[in-house]
Amino acid sequence: MIGIVGGVGPYSGIDLLKKVFDNTLANCDQEYLDAILISASSKIEDRTEYLIGNIKENPAIAIAEVLFKLQDVGATVAGIPCNTAHSEKIFSIIQLQLKKSEATINVLNMIEETVSFIGINYPNINKVGVLSTTGTYKSGVYTKALQSKGYEVIVPSLEMQENLIHPGIYHSTYGIKTISNPIHPKARKNLLEGISFLKAQGAQAVILGCTEIPLAITETVINDLITIDPTNVLARALVLHSNPNKLKPL
Amino acid sequence: MIGIVGGVGPYSGIDLLKKVFDNTLANCDQEYLDAILISASSKIEDRTEYLIGNIKENPAIAIAEVLFKLQDVGATVAGIPCNTAHSEKIFSIIQLQLKKSEATINVLNMIEETVSFIGINYPNINKVGVLSTTGTYKSGVYTKALQSKGYEVIVPSLEMQENLIHPGIYHSTYGIKTISNPIHPKARKNLLEGISFLKAQGAQAVILGCTEIPLAITETVINDLITIDPTNVLARALVLHSNPNKLKPL
Repeated sequence: MIGIVGGVGPYSGIDLLKKVFDNTLANCDQEYLDAILISASSKIEDRTEYLIGNIKENPAIAIAEVLFKLQDVGATVAGIPCNTAHSEKIFSIIQLQLKKSEATINVLNMIEETVSFIGINYPNINKVGVLSTTGTYKSGVYTKALQSKGYEVIVPSLEMQENLIHPGIYHSTYGIKTISNPIHPKARKNLLEGISFLKAQGAQAVILGCTEIPLAITETVINDLITIDPTNVLARALVLHSNPNKLKPL
Repeated sequence: MIGIVGGVGPYSGIDLLKKVFDNTLANCDQEYLDAILISASSKIEDRTEYLIGNIKENPAIAIAEVLFKLQDVGATVAGIPCNTAHSEKIFSIIQLQLKKSEATINVLNMIEETVSFIGINYPNINKVGVLSTTGTYKSGVYTKALQSKGYEVIVPSLEMQENLIHPGIYHSTYGIKTISNPIHPKARKNLLEGISFLKAQGAQAVILGCTEIPLAITETVINDLITIDPTNVLARALVLHSNPNKLKPL
């Protein structure tokens, strides 16, 4: 059974589950893979707020609690559809909690899966742009993972990050986390400006490095850049680990 | 915590969870209601196939097992986003299983919630059309529930039901259960023909009485008929039972 840590954010959990089904070969209900999603958003503190120091409690503890519950119900492999939760200060503590409890559930690392996916599917790409929350931006989680595999990494300037990209996700009147059905045009406009910047700096692909971003940027190629959706990559990895015969070809 | 019996079908479970969040007043992740969705589609036999006699095993048993798991993880109220599962031959057995195990989880009845929703929000309507699977059609679950409240009920002819409506949902090459992202134009066309028929017979509203149908018919008014989406009604009822202060006004 596939486990999904929902609630980080609520719509990202749904998006991951939908992408698990979208990437599954099935002709009727009974041929889909079994899955469980727990959306405990009220108990998991904001990941970015923790990383930038505004919140003391590490959200890793509450995320690990969800993983224990997923395992109890029968999940053997799990994904956390939140890039910021994969920053070292959070993800390492999730892993520590699991280890302390001798948990057997296999928690996939969305960042590593994404870097590996680019290497396998786009071998000619060497300059990769990244759009993300300020938490992910400052943690440098994608930058480190990409650079360790030899990629040149392009990110927005700090000013652009704080005034354009982060508000596109978090702004209280137009951000994707507030308005997602449908997306507010200003949120999409902010992100498109970011993509133009990355392209001007030479990026060949752009990682939509916050699980909310693909809700606003749904194109597979935008402004000539290949878009990489880590949620979709994670969904494919979950299907592969659960039942490789069920993985829909790209 | 809100519980969702997913997998009946897989995308309907996602649709219900999304509608729970869509109907919740929340400005950040932490303000959404906690929820758990278990999609055990591999273990739950097709509801229509059971009702028409092609399958012996009552899917109620597997659905009740999911409800027990939802309760174990902390769900206090639950919804089953499958109209056909609310036919008496299935729903009464689900309720019996819960009673035998002294389960405390409150399972809402999507059909009763829908009829009640029409009465409260559209007091001038008295002729209601219903589109559904052949299983729901033959069980007459909506017809009985509506007639008991004094409504005149309009459904497709049996020929139209079997050659147009049911294939729109179940057909192996164009049905919504096979092709849902995006919906196949033939599936939508079949359903629109059904809606035209209901209108010609005098219907003032149409219940989209299979949880797959709102994936193809997303309009709130179509061909002058008000569309009633039982999944959305159920989502609102789940929010109301979980935390009435969080219910977004219509």
